[in-house]
Amino acid sequence: MDSIFSDRITDVPRSFIREILKVALDPAVISFAGGLPNRELFPAEEIKKATNKVFSMHGKDIFQYSNSEGYLKLREYIAERYHQTKNLDIPVENILITSGSQQGLDLLGKILLNDGNGVIIEEPGYLGAIQAFSIYRPEFFPVPVSEEGMDTQRLRKIISSHKPKLMYTVPNFQNPSGISYSQENRLEVSEILQETNIILIEDDAYGDLRFTGESKQSFKDLLPDNTVLLGSFSKTIIPGFRLGWIVTPKHIMEKLIIAKQAADLHTSHFTQSIIYQYLKDNDIDKHISRIREAYGNQCRAMLNSIQNYFPPSVTYTKPEGGMFLWAELPQNVASLDLFDLAVKDNVVFVPGDPFYVKKMRTRTLRLNFSCVDEGTIQIGIRKLGNAIRNLLK
Amino acid sequence: MDSIFSDRITDVPRSFIREILKVALDPAVISFAGGLPNRELFPAEEIKKATNKVFSMHGKDIFQYSNSEGYLKLREYIAERYHQTKNLDIPVENILITSGSQQGLDLLGKILLNDGNGVIIEEPGYLGAIQAFSIYRPEFFPVPVSEEGMDTQRLRKIISSHKPKLMYTVPNFQNPSGISYSQENRLEVSEILQETNIILIEDDAYGDLRFTGESKQSFKDLLPDNTVLLGSFSKTIIPGFRLGWIVTPKHIMEKLIIAKQAADLHTSHFTQSIIYQYLKDNDIDKHISRIREAYGNQCRAMLNSIQNYFPPSVTYTKPEGGMFLWAELPQNVASLDLFDLAVKDNVVFVPGDPFYVKKMRTRTLRLNFSCVDEGTIQIGIRKLGNAIRNLLK
Repeated sequence: MDSIFSDRITDVPRSFIREILKVALDPAVISFAGGLPNRELFPAEEIKKATNKVFSMHGKDIFQYSNSEGYLKLREYIAERYHQTKNLDIPVENILITSGSQQGLDLLGKILLNDGNGVIIEEPGYLGAIQAFSIYRPEFFPVPVSEEGMDTQRLRKIISSHKPKLMYTVPNFQNPSGISYSQENRLEVSEILQETNIILIEDDAYGDLRFTGESKQSFKDLLPDNTVLLGSFSKTIIPGFRLGWIVTPKHIMEKLIIAKQAADLHTSHFTQSIIYQYLKDNDIDKHISRIREAYGNQCRAMLNSIQNYFPPSVTYTKPEGGMFLWAELPQNVASLDLFDLAVKDNVVFVPGDPFYVKKMRTRTLRLNFSCVDEGTIQIGIRKLGNAIRNLLK
Repeated sequence: MDSIFSDRITDVPRSFIREILKVALDPAVISFAGGLPNRELFPAEEIKKATNKVFSMHGKDIFQYSNSEGYLKLREYIAERYHQTKNLDIPVENILITSGSQQGLDLLGKILLNDGNGVIIEEPGYLGAIQAFSIYRPEFFPVPVSEEGMDTQRLRKIISSHKPKLMYTVPNFQNPSGISYSQENRLEVSEILQETNIILIEDDAYGDLRFTGESKQSFKDLLPDNTVLLGSFSKTIIPGFRLGWIVTPKHIMEKLIIAKQAADLHTSHFTQSIIYQYLKDNDIDKHISRIREAYGNQCRAMLNSIQNYFPPSVTYTKPEGGMFLWAELPQNVASLDLFDLAVKDNVVFVPGDPFYVKKMRTRTLRLNFSCVDEGTIQIGIRKLGNAIRNLLK
């Protein structure tokens, strides 16, 4: 029997992270597996206030159908903030509000990718991007990333031999690895891309969450005409409203709006109004600094515990921000085997496999530190260290 | 220069309704062009109460990332309501919450359509569906609809010669025409489809808005295994939350969830919780009966005015519900020309052209009656009648 499904959907990897997260729901389990912001830091009272202000200030228009581009005042706020924080001048017309950054990835894949087009993706890379682009059946070209940034030698080689169309990058505190591109690496990557027509998708979901080190230049600044920049309120305010945005050159915006209309007409004007009111009435930098402090403390606690409890043969990244770090086990040890052992001792994490387009039975693992307090981090990392030692025996 | 865009996006018709709606923003203009529910009937106070109840009853979880299927209690409510109002037994697992029905169309196109697959579409047909499916580059096969329902002779012919994969229908108070399928026509269409593998997408966005006549059987009841049923809160409560749902056989649901994850992870749990609370605390049938009464009065006012002011050579539908009616001008008169004339006298409507996959310079027009009061309807239809008479001179 022929499949009733389109070819495109049969190619999409099913997320096995969701299966892991089901295990993590057991309160007895210490979970480093999630990818969630810490709920304790959600500005619940302020959002409630903003909501009631929206109710009293706006008429019934916040309940009506609205425009596909998004709430103008919110887009103006986003443009103004880019100006203030990054010295980027973004015309408001070039900002589209999306139902989370994930929708940005879907819309961009939809309007840019034909079957078989080349997409450069970081290795390890963000699973949500791999899934979103997979729908449009590209050929993925993974380029390794490390604490310096992207492997530029490999990047040059892929570009010259495969003429890829798109490149996807998370240059700040990457999911899953926690790495950031150095300023030198950004300059070199920009130089390489400058001579091509490759569209660079710069996903900056975590950029505000720097707890140490210096801010680096955005690719949108280095390569303005080639770069599509994705932003999100999910990591700095709340994820549940599903609000993100795309900053894109004008010629791409026209097609994006057509795709947005076909995808869901528009993103809720109600939640956009609430977020805008929240931003207007509150000191967002003060709020973000609280998140930075908490995540910074938790990251340091995790790094200290790893140093204390993991065998020295395990290597790991030292993130300057974000929510994740990345560890690599010694040769001949698969992180999936470690997972099976650790779950018996009530500790879970995400084995690296889903973050690679092709590799299986990797030695890598993603550890989330945003949702676990410092004491629990110590207990969990100690357990994990024991499991690693047992596996190495 | 090669286009930077995918082939799929270059094929999608740009909505010229949006251009018309810009004209309609002028308060001096009487607009029968919109497709909006009447904002005066939005239950704003009740939504506000439900929102504050959600804030006080739920913890911060309503702000966190959530599951892709949607809020369980809301899905249970939808299943229970199908049971009560239509005697349909729908397992909760077969209901997926979407960001409006429009997203349902996008996800279904995404998981079901390969390039060139045949899609049966009503003629005239819903523009949003034409746009959503166009992204996936099918071949459209239009089948005329009238006040009896679908032209079954044409349907049989297309099925036997083209083996289409999908059929899209709005059997109750169709957008744009206002027509509904008779019970006999539903039975005949079901009989024809029964012998095929065609997946029927039954879009029931307007089904609750019946102001006269008897309810008819759902295709989900007649053809349960082949039918995917779309529902929405946009027309009965508020559209601005972007909340709809898909009811689908289990084997399709699995792929839909993968596509939903890739598209936007999930629909806002916050707005889902508010709508659920609203539904729990209010008499939704009483609320809907107010909408029915208002739209029924406005529809009758429009029909009376048409009878009084349009030349008898203009034919038109007599809707039993919904928000639209459909008129056809005499031979050799294009509705685009009528539009140009009418707009000078400050009346607008949507010429029929965008509701056809292929036809241009049609003689048909869509008239919306949900957003204009009875007195204004009379004035507007009289002006439009004058414009038609001037055009016929």
